[in-house]
Amino acid sequence: MHSEVEVFAETLDRLRLDVNKALESLIQDELNLGAGEVAREAGRMLNAGGKRLRPILFMLAYRLAGGDNDEHAMPLALAFELIHTATLVHDDINDEAEQRRGIPTIHATSGQAKAVIAGDWLFVQGFGLGGRYSAQIVDIIARCCANIAVSEFHQLDHVLNLATTPEDYFSIVKGKTAGPFAAGCQAAGLIAGLSESQALGLERFGMELGIAFQLVDDLLDLRGDERMGKPRGADVHEGKMTLPLIHALTLSHGPHRQRLSELIEDFSDDDFDELMALLDRSTSMEYAELLVRTHIERARAELEVFPESDAKRLMLHITEYVMNRHV
Amino acid sequence: MHSEVEVFAETLDRLRLDVNKALESLIQDELNLGAGEVAREAGRMLNAGGKRLRPILFMLAYRLAGGDNDEHAMPLALAFELIHTATLVHDDINDEAEQRRGIPTIHATSGQAKAVIAGDWLFVQGFGLGGRYSAQIVDIIARCCANIAVSEFHQLDHVLNLATTPEDYFSIVKGKTAGPFAAGCQAAGLIAGLSESQALGLERFGMELGIAFQLVDDLLDLRGDERMGKPRGADVHEGKMTLPLIHALTLSHGPHRQRLSELIEDFSDDDFDELMALLDRSTSMEYAELLVRTHIERARAELEVFPESDAKRLMLHITEYVMNRHV
Repeated sequence: MHSEVEVFAETLDRLRLDVNKALESLIQDELNLGAGEVAREAGRMLNAGGKRLRPILFMLAYRLAGGDNDEHAMPLALAFELIHTATLVHDDINDEAEQRRGIPTIHATSGQAKAVIAGDWLFVQGFGLGGRYSAQIVDIIARCCANIAVSEFHQLDHVLNLATTPEDYFSIVKGKTAGPFAAGCQAAGLIAGLSESQALGLERFGMELGIAFQLVDDLLDLRGDERMGKPRGADVHEGKMTLPLIHALTLSHGPHRQRLSELIEDFSDDDFDELMALLDRSTSMEYAELLVRTHIERARAELEVFPESDAKRLMLHITEYVMNRHV
Repeated sequence: MHSEVEVFAETLDRLRLDVNKALESLIQDELNLGAGEVAREAGRMLNAGGKRLRPILFMLAYRLAGGDNDEHAMPLALAFELIHTATLVHDDINDEAEQRRGIPTIHATSGQAKAVIAGDWLFVQGFGLGGRYSAQIVDIIARCCANIAVSEFHQLDHVLNLATTPEDYFSIVKGKTAGPFAAGCQAAGLIAGLSESQALGLERFGMELGIAFQLVDDLLDLRGDERMGKPRGADVHEGKMTLPLIHALTLSHGPHRQRLSELIEDFSDDDFDELMALLDRSTSMEYAELLVRTHIERARAELEVFPESDAKRLMLHITEYVMNRHV
């Protein structure tokens, strides 16, 4: 007899395997068509993907909403994973990141020019799959991707901007990180046959979960976690205003705020202990953790209207996983 | 009474106006939705577009194929123009070009990071429109865009590669420049209701015209033409192996070939007269002109199976325009 947790793990593993197999066969098909290096480089980054949180979540949202043929939802799930990877490849150029998902970035191995094009190629593959659906679904994907770009512009404008407010932060996070979670869940629900208003419940679920996910990312960047596949403090080095920093800047005064500003503006790895001590003073890590719990609770509440099912239990399980990722 | 040429010019002007109005309203809609700077920057580059050769051609291909409701084809025409502009924005980053279409490039005004994202945004807008069509059309667009990326990788591998063959050249041109002409004409034909095999005739038309278009571009880069919106010799400076250079390297021997190689590998504007004299020795400009005429003739021949119509006459007129652009 298996425990519930074992059954969960088995189902998630099977979904992850399905997603990985489908992505690998997409890359292999393109290689067979003569795509060569661009498919190899894009595939290298794609296949280093690990968790597959987004596509698994969208497959589950499809099942939760009553969908009974995974093949109808798989192209959508893959489309979002491809587009997500495309944005990472382009982000890494702009951030001059050397590592991603624990392997060298494309621009580190093949140069900037090829990294720009490899990202475009991933976008194209994603839209090729997403374009198989109705105009309604295509609009949701396109709107989500346009919002990613808009939010990335805002994020760039806020680099090292010590006056960044929590509102700025949440607006950027909603567009860039949480938006795709929301759009994928909403689209999966519609494909399964939900009404527009029911699907909006899944959209809100994805948005809340995505916000929590980004907050956890902020915490992990400061705490350091080898599972991130990138060095500790990468966000601070890039001048990204994460929520714990924004919170600490708001609450700190006098010499503490002065010192915090200096650390953020010219950060080196030797400064970690001092930075963390300042964040401790304003309990900014705890504040971010509290927000994680709030948004996870809101996400879970959105699922209440849906009937009990394995998919629903797994989605609730994933909300816990996202919340506890930083433990 | 108007001459045929006047009627042609009037119809083309009207189509160009329709395309421009639709693009401007797309940008305005995005601005109204809060897209801000990314839409302004992308729109600045999009609206500097001038000729609108591709979308006009696709609208005419739709009419030639019996289509009688322009609104059915307009999203396709706009999609290709948006995707084309996206590739230009990304190319300009990689080429470090300062000017495009006679205005400063996005990376020159807003920096590389925003230029990457603005290009992505244009891709997304294009795919959002292209995704409104059937899976067959979406596949054609996605296949075409994937080929652009594959060819751009090849082109980068051939920068300053003096052993580049005409086969390499045509393979790159077919993917990068001519492929979108071909895919747009083919898709327009299908949308109008052509059979697959009839639409393949339009695909071949677009491919031949696109090859001729690129050859003329090569000639204009060497001769210099202010209508290009970029400085004379930009291709040579970037190390792009254009057909006249490939031809001259193949036909030249001894000290002439030696000097030609040196000029290509380390080109400065003072070298123009000497370069052109070497190209004259091997009649390489004339050879490229001959190829232009050959491909234009092949393009025109593909239209013979279609019944006479204003659209057909205008498409033939455009083939002449493409051929004579370098005069």
